Amino acid sequence: MKNDKFNKLIQSINPIDLTIQQSALKRFDKLTKPTKSLGRLEDLVARAAGIYGSLNPELKRKVVFLMAADHGVTAEKVSAYPAEITRKMVLNFLDGGAAINVLTRHFGIEVIVTDIGVRGEFGKKTGLIDKKIDQGTMNMAIGPAMTEEMAEKSVLVGHEVFEKAFKEKKIDLIGLGEMGIGNTTASSAIISVLTGAKLEKVVDMGTGLQPKEIRHKISIIKKAIKISQPNPKDPVDVLAKVGGFEIGGLVGCILSAAARRVPIVMDGLISGACALLAVNLNPIVQDYLFASHCSKEKGHRVALLYLQQLPVFDLEMHLGEGTGAVFGMNFLEAGFKLLNEMATFDEMKIYKGNLGHGVDK
Amino acid sequence: MKNDKFNKLIQSINPIDLTIQQSALKRFDKLTKPTKSLGRLEDLVARAAGIYGSLNPELKRKVVFLMAADHGVTAEKVSAYPAEITRKMVLNFLDGGAAINVLTRHFGIEVIVTDIGVRGEFGKKTGLIDKKIDQGTMNMAIGPAMTEEMAEKSVLVGHEVFEKAFKEKKIDLIGLGEMGIGNTTASSAIISVLTGAKLEKVVDMGTGLQPKEIRHKISIIKKAIKISQPNPKDPVDVLAKVGGFEIGGLVGCILSAAARRVPIVMDGLISGACALLAVNLNPIVQDYLFASHCSKEKGHRVALLYLQQLPVFDLEMHLGEGTGAVFGMNFLEAGFKLLNEMATFDEMKIYKGNLGHGVDK
Repeated sequence: MKNDKFNKLIQSINPIDLTIQQSALKRFDKLTKPTKSLGRLEDLVARAAGIYGSLNPELKRKVVFLMAADHGVTAEKVSAYPAEITRKMVLNFLDGGAAINVLTRHFGIEVIVTDIGVRGEFGKKTGLIDKKIDQGTMNMAIGPAMTEEMAEKSVLVGHEVFEKAFKEKKIDLIGLGEMGIGNTTASSAIISVLTGAKLEKVVDMGTGLQPKEIRHKISIIKKAIKISQPNPKDPVDVLAKVGGFEIGGLVGCILSAAARRVPIVMDGLISGACALLAVNLNPIVQDYLFASHCSKEKGHRVALLYLQQLPVFDLEMHLGEGTGAVFGMNFLEAGFKLLNEMATFDEMKIYKGNLGHGVDK
Repeated sequence: MKNDKFNKLIQSINPIDLTIQQSALKRFDKLTKPTKSLGRLEDLVARAAGIYGSLNPELKRKVVFLMAADHGVTAEKVSAYPAEITRKMVLNFLDGGAAINVLTRHFGIEVIVTDIGVRGEFGKKTGLIDKKIDQGTMNMAIGPAMTEEMAEKSVLVGHEVFEKAFKEKKIDLIGLGEMGIGNTTASSAIISVLTGAKLEKVVDMGTGLQPKEIRHKISIIKKAIKISQPNPKDPVDVLAKVGGFEIGGLVGCILSAAARRVPIVMDGLISGACALLAVNLNPIVQDYLFASHCSKEKGHRVALLYLQQLPVFDLEMHLGEGTGAVFGMNFLEAGFKLLNEMATFDEMKIYKGNLGHGVDK
């Protein structure tokens, strides 16, 4: 189907500026350090510079977009935690007591929390954006998780939430965060369908399943895929059949941020699935994405491989909410300070020509 | 030999508090997140809590001890950069233009720069601690890099520098930083001698050698080891024969910090060699050490393996100065905030008993 607004969003993304990217790499080479000794951080910062079209962007407003929704598939006992935890954790986000609140306070990052499909009501809650599409998705084990209309709507909701925040005040860097009991099931299904990797290589413990329960989770996803037959060549179909509202919402944030030339820092398994969907909608998106950590969920590595991204750190975290993304955002921020605040060899009056590179023996 | 002060320092280190370490892990289990979902960060913070003897230490004063010295072995052309860069980089540290300056400003960390053996003079330079033992070490390829007295002195200098700073104002967390053209040669030699790993598995490009030059570097270290026969069972002998003044200085910082119950965050290859020496002087030190990144220098992985430490991040950095350590320090700081600022399930009125862990299928 794909309505006009949806098509327009997908087509509004331009390639990054390769000239600026090269200039950034050249500047790194002039700084008072051995050549390339900041390693991959130099490449990441240079690519981000190519996104901004500037070597010295202001990284004033950093935002984690945290989308929450429930999953009908929890009826199949695919999670160690009951579905009502989604709603309770949203209240925790609003109270500032969750891991992502602590970390965003630590790093000077804002969190924007959206209810895009949580089961139950919040009433008027300060700080919560109400964009509920439905009371959670339907159970993918017995039919599509949502209609195609809903899938497109979820992406457009993410787009709207990003755009509203961006228009209020320019956003310079974003991280992806999510909450939704059952969403490692949806994400594992998406990753398997889009990469072609076997479910056994993708599905993992989620919030804490035992090996026997993981096998059950695999069998439920197999059932869902068999019933709905998601088409790997149609990301919207995949999102509708085995996805989730918060997943669609983050796809919308990714597309919007890329359209606005804002770098996007991924988190773990779920944001990896979102990134796969976005890249399948428009491959240019790939240059706007930055990996942070590698989650303990094994499917995350499969997603990162497909996205050709190496993680920055690995602490075997698997919490979600954007808790890995914020560390990644901080690496980028520190990297831009290095690019702009370090002395060059010229300023130090040591000329590179004198450094004896490639000294003959 | 080992003078009284030296022996006293080594013996002044006590085991960490295992009860507090366990309490920290138990508290992590009560926080509003899936069990163990902060992964290894929980273990690192719990061990640090065991060092402090507190779940809620104040991390007010964080310091990178940056020790600089020259190496006689540079006469053998083992580095891509000439020895005079050591002195020039010290001036850069004092001017605030080096990578470590940018990063410590970013993270709110102090840098204490010590000249423990740089070739050339600085005159009276604000901010530089003058503890010069000599104008660089001797050339290890023709005899010991220093005398045993000098080796012990270098460790005691590190001890003095740490103690003076600590007595002026309590230090809560330290990182190890160094500058010294030629010091990947010394560190690779130390790592090979102490771990028994072959030089071919340890020696790498340093500031930027080509493969042919790396083979030359290996041959020089082999010559040094053959001439001096460092005794793997005597860390002071190893430090004297193939080490460096800044390496000894950082060993002193490590021992001092451990004696004062301050966690120590390592950086790359050189601080890995320092840690190996310190752990061989007193194995209790191991519990006080924290890895940050894994350097691109392959010998670093060998050192970390021996120290039974997993790195937190890997960006293929190989800059030194403490540039990896500061990110590691920030992970620990963020981890303590998580431990202390997150809501517990009790506070959220969700009891763990209701969470359906290990749900039967």
